[in-house]
Amino acid sequence: MTENKKTTIVLFSGDYDKAMAAYIIANGAAAYDHEVTIFHTFWGLNALRKDEDIKVQKGFMEKMFGKMMPKGADKMGLSKMNFAGMGPKMIKSVMKKHNALSLPSLIDMAQEQDVKLVACTMTMDLLGLQKEELLDSIDYAGVAAYLGDAEEGNVNLFI
Amino acid sequence: MTENKKTTIVLFSGDYDKAMAAYIIANGAAAYDHEVTIFHTFWGLNALRKDEDIKVQKGFMEKMFGKMMPKGADKMGLSKMNFAGMGPKMIKSVMKKHNALSLPSLIDMAQEQDVKLVACTMTMDLLGLQKEELLDSIDYAGVAAYLGDAEEGNVNLFI
Amino acid sequence: MTENKKTTIVLFSGDYDKAMAAYIIANGAAAYDHEVTIFHTFWGLNALRKDEDIKVQKGFMEKMFGKMMPKGADKMGLSKMNFAGMGPKMIKSVMKKHNALSLPSLIDMAQEQDVKLVACTMTMDLLGLQKEELLDSIDYAGVAAYLGDAEEGNVNLFI
Repeated sequence: MTENKKTTIVLFSGDYDKAMAAYIIANGAAAYDHEVTIFHTFWGLNALRKDEDIKVQKGFMEKMFGKMMPKGADKMGLSKMNFAGMGPKMIKSVMKKHNALSLPSLIDMAQEQDVKLVACTMTMDLLGLQKEELLDSIDYAGVAAYLGDAEEGNVNLFI
Repeated sequence: MTENKKTTIVLFSGDYDKAMAAYIIANGAAAYDHEVTIFHTFWGLNALRKDEDIKVQKGFMEKMFGKMMPKGADKMGLSKMNFAGMGPKMIKSVMKKHNALSLPSLIDMAQEQDVKLVACTMTMDLLGLQKEELLDSIDYAGVAAYLGDAEEGNVNLFI
Repeated sequence: MTENKKTTIVLFSGDYDKAMAAYIIANGAAAYDHEVTIFHTFWGLNALRKDEDIKVQKGFMEKMFGKMMPKGADKMGLSKMNFAGMGPKMIKSVMKKHNALSLPSLIDMAQEQDVKLVACTMTMDLLGLQKEELLDSIDYAGVAAYLGDAEEGNVNLFI
């Protein structure tokens, strides 16, 4: 019995293009039988948000963060050349033309391939995000669980 | 005798939130008995600056950089939603409410846990930062020393 | 016979300073006999662009991207304190004063040291970049080849 290789990615960034890169690497690694974990922290949590309005009780600051941050993968901006939202439109139009998968489709594919999607509970708390607002069937954990995965990892990335 | 695991982080970024992520991972790894090194290069050096004015001899360009860059961890901005300084205030207020440690406290804790804090001498030179301006009891090294640590590392991250 | 250590860097960023950090680490690792690969994806592809105008057939969107993105390493901006182009000028002037190598020289040195420079074919397609527009004697590959290198790597970084 040989053990599977492990790929562990911290997704810190809330940019559409960086999240795409993370999910493309994750899906590739899963296709090569790696055990893959994406640990979503800080702005990376936005990739896991549902795109609908969820009614939850929040304090004032948490409401502000909730309003200002993108609601889900499809609403995220680019790290470069965002041009007030024009950049993402251009990228998405080019992606469609080249039959490349959109970020939401890459996330679906990752879930189908059993990539473990983890939301960092400490930063959920800070940004006032609640479980009801995030995708179903994801995991919740802290930095200790991340380190447990990463210290055995073949490929560790911070994106 | 078993050898300790190693975590080596390059902190390139001068953003408050990214530095927080780096120091949270570093402190977590140190708590699990990893040997941890944070190699501060480029804007990441600002996390190590003292927050007082230090009198040192500098050329014109070096003085400009010194004035434009944040003086210490507490003055750093956010990578996203900085809103001309409003973002850091919001995050810090939320952190206080949730009893999360501030970045300066995370740096103190790292020093207490013997995390090795290294300042990259090549970029200190470029940005005109001098030892007098940085925190006491840190190390100074170049890319060769970083690679020596990283090539034995279990967890290597570039933040 | 001992095997060489491996360093594999994903260069996602199109920032002058981040690309410098990537190439400094890569050149250092090559000097220590690592097998080094830099996998250029998304905006990182701009570091490989020739700085001349190359006549190629492109669609409208691809032409737009081509015009908006920097033509080669020397035209790239800074991740912080870009100040509409003033930042890169300051950094380059300080680098000259300190006899530090410019980014184009660091790329030349990497090629002389047999660092494998790879352009990600999927993102070339998305951004409409063609082989004629990129430096000579580089490699072309996708995420599978990257993972093949990275899973054996001692140092894996995403920059």
